[in-house]
Amino acid sequence: MAKNNAKMVEQITSMDVDFAQWYTDVVKKAELVDYSGVKGCMIIRPYGYAIWENIQKDLDARFKELGHENVYMPLFIPESLLQKEKDHVAGFAPECAWVTMGGENQLTERLCVRPTSETLFCEHFRNVIQSYRDLPKLYNQWCNVVRWEKTTRPFLRTSEFLWQEGHTMHETEEEARQETLRMLEVYRSFYADTLAIPAYTGRKTEKEKFAGAEETYTIEPMMHNGVALQGGTSHYFGNGFAKAFDITFTGRDNTQRYPYQTSWGLSTRSIGAIIMTHGDDNGLILPPRIAPIQLVIIPVAQHKEGVLEKAEELRRVLAGRFRVRLDDSDNSTGWKFSQYEMKGVPLRLELGPRDMENNSCVLVSRVTREKTVVSLDNLPDAVEQALQKVHDELYQRALENRDRRTYEARSLDEFLDLAANQSGYIKAMWCGDAACEEQLKDQTGGVKSRCIPFVEDHLSDVCVCCGKPAKHMVIWGRQY
Amino acid sequence: MAKNNAKMVEQITSMDVDFAQWYTDVVKKAELVDYSGVKGCMIIRPYGYAIWENIQKDLDARFKELGHENVYMPLFIPESLLQKEKDHVAGFAPECAWVTMGGENQLTERLCVRPTSETLFCEHFRNVIQSYRDLPKLYNQWCNVVRWEKTTRPFLRTSEFLWQEGHTMHETEEEARQETLRMLEVYRSFYADTLAIPAYTGRKTEKEKFAGAEETYTIEPMMHNGVALQGGTSHYFGNGFAKAFDITFTGRDNTQRYPYQTSWGLSTRSIGAIIMTHGDDNGLILPPRIAPIQLVIIPVAQHKEGVLEKAEELRRVLAGRFRVRLDDSDNSTGWKFSQYEMKGVPLRLELGPRDMENNSCVLVSRVTREKTVVSLDNLPDAVEQALQKVHDELYQRALENRDRRTYEARSLDEFLDLAANQSGYIKAMWCGDAACEEQLKDQTGGVKSRCIPFVEDHLSDVCVCCGKPAKHMVIWGRQY
Repeated sequence: MAKNNAKMVEQITSMDVDFAQWYTDVVKKAELVDYSGVKGCMIIRPYGYAIWENIQKDLDARFKELGHENVYMPLFIPESLLQKEKDHVAGFAPECAWVTMGGENQLTERLCVRPTSETLFCEHFRNVIQSYRDLPKLYNQWCNVVRWEKTTRPFLRTSEFLWQEGHTMHETEEEARQETLRMLEVYRSFYADTLAIPAYTGRKTEKEKFAGAEETYTIEPMMHNGVALQGGTSHYFGNGFAKAFDITFTGRDNTQRYPYQTSWGLSTRSIGAIIMTHGDDNGLILPPRIAPIQLVIIPVAQHKEGVLEKAEELRRVLAGRFRVRLDDSDNSTGWKFSQYEMKGVPLRLELGPRDMENNSCVLVSRVTREKTVVSLDNLPDAVEQALQKVHDELYQRALENRDRRTYEARSLDEFLDLAANQSGYIKAMWCGDAACEEQLKDQTGGVKSRCIPFVEDHLSDVCVCCGKPAKHMVIWGRQY
Repeated sequence: MAKNNAKMVEQITSMDVDFAQWYTDVVKKAELVDYSGVKGCMIIRPYGYAIWENIQKDLDARFKELGHENVYMPLFIPESLLQKEKDHVAGFAPECAWVTMGGENQLTERLCVRPTSETLFCEHFRNVIQSYRDLPKLYNQWCNVVRWEKTTRPFLRTSEFLWQEGHTMHETEEEARQETLRMLEVYRSFYADTLAIPAYTGRKTEKEKFAGAEETYTIEPMMHNGVALQGGTSHYFGNGFAKAFDITFTGRDNTQRYPYQTSWGLSTRSIGAIIMTHGDDNGLILPPRIAPIQLVIIPVAQHKEGVLEKAEELRRVLAGRFRVRLDDSDNSTGWKFSQYEMKGVPLRLELGPRDMENNSCVLVSRVTREKTVVSLDNLPDAVEQALQKVHDELYQRALENRDRRTYEARSLDEFLDLAANQSGYIKAMWCGDAACEEQLKDQTGGVKSRCIPFVEDHLSDVCVCCGKPAKHMVIWGRQY
């Protein structure tokens, strides 16, 4: 007997029994992360990091297509620099990690490990922006950031995480506002077209805005269990930072002006969104466009003559166009099926002696487990179509879950009842007052405003909380 | 008159007058970096970062081709973890930046911002290596590291820098030793074939080894002024870290064994090597394979009918195969010539009305300024050849400089005379005693052993310093 046959793929907790434990099981057993002795930090293992590399490649191409350039700013922010914009420092100082010693010496000024880099970009913008001809500046940075967290979970909330942060400067308010929305749309279409994740987008309330921003826009995908995950944010700053950092340029009319600023970020949390949107009780399910392995070839009865040779031939045929792996190890076929399901490989190709006689093979969707017999003639096109189908199935399933779990509340009782008995989003009218947000959060034990969508339904004339005239329809929900 | 015509490209200091100032001028005026208010840290601007992206892409493909996988480890190393390997902590502790506060709270254990990640990898290896079947582990990480520096220079020595660090674990000593040399060869061929930089390679002396390594191998390119820059290092660790971190695996004979380890790194210093190996008094010269712009098209007499249209047509023809830019701005032709020379663009394409009549254009090498008239029929192939020629010219010129500046010393007097009056490398015999290294360094004000090359010349029987029997021929030199 083959030596590994005894080893079965380990079981994971069922989603319905304990969603949090299911998540922990998946990230460990799909070998995405390892825990580290460094409090709050995670180790991203090869399979997890390959997902991040595919995310980076896709997003980076989208940014560059729109004219953005990558740069690299320092890891450290001197305390005095962080303090230049008052709202910003108030928001971030409580979660800064502080470097106070360099080598053997106490530093004269302590350095914050960057939680975000607006202040560093502003210091640089001040040097490189003189004239309207220097605008716009469309910069992006791929880097690590640190926000000191008390309780942490892999990908969702860690003291250190990886992200991209875009920082742009513009001649006019209108152009900066357009950039803010343009980048939100990049995130929306990235989530939909690359990650197969539908999401609500909209504007954050005053209370939920980024520290220092005039407006924060957000993309809010819903996880399988109805909980929100903030998937990415895009901020319009006006010229508040420009004033605080004294960044000016000579305008077309030869007067000195302040430029208008944006920033936008998306992080390794998006991997958490993939796991919790698409996964099932058999493990991870990866959207084909970012899956490190898009297709695994599993030979059936591989000891039979010609099976492994044919499987290797198919691997070579497909490798130019897809990320493909052939598993010809001596593990049992059943073990392999379970293993690659756990790892979320979107498509499985089975090939055995009978298939070879028929010049065909079997493609199996990770989502539906539907089996399709396809001819080996023109196999790459069949695989292409099957991967597209997996993508569509994932998107459609997530959309149905989101729509099924999106509720409407027309009264406070209704709101509290939904919050207590359903897991999902609640649409409800709001007067615009932060006190009502606070009250709803307190009374529900954590339901917060997710966003004011671009198209608001008119559910009633009054705020669901206080009964005063409503200003907006807000989408509410619990969050990771 | 065009409004920018008055603005001429700023002059830079001549290399021969003041090499250090020339370097500073080039990194600023070619817009590679900006200085930051954060002590010891630099800002890498879009043009500089694009070079790093091309370096990453090239190296990453070489690593993956050999089976290495990328991972991500934490930014922080708890002090107790750093201390597990005694030589290692002794080498790095003096240059650590220490995080002592998280938010408002003093940490119970201070955290070092990683200067290198052996300790973190070892902690993880302990979790994921159980059996010989788990070996080899071939990991690599792209990240930032911090080493607290007193005096800093962009790319050459900064408190924070970007690099890749490979970390591998092997079943046998032989395999680990092979990996160490294999990765040194990857660096050597990357420098030669991608950066057009020839270099000596060899083994470091005991004194110059990496903290905790059994052997350190190095690649030592010579800068234009004869000074060495350590271009990359590859370390063999034996199983010292494995023992310190209690990493064991069950061998094929069913006994518990310690795995054998390597690490190897190459950083943004390589950009400093490019600048100082290839640059000239007109600015930067970039090797074509990593140049963000490989070819700039400059229309001559661009107001004449059809010139700009034709130039744009050529840009489109070339864009699929090369990184190409058309400068159709209203700056003067002379300004454009100087500007792209400063930025080190390897090839210039000039196109004017007369060229168009002849169905030709002119290609100008940034290295030799040689002009070649080429037909517009099959232009891409002509550009390909011209870029290859620039690469070869750069390599050849650097090789001649290196060989011309490599001296031999057969006595202490000869050694001291060369060290005082020539700038370059000195080949000389050595007894193997660190005291002689120390003495040569003191007497010359900084000439140190670069490496023991794989093939040693036999210059004499005795150490150039103490006269005792020689063990090795060493290449000596001053360093950045």
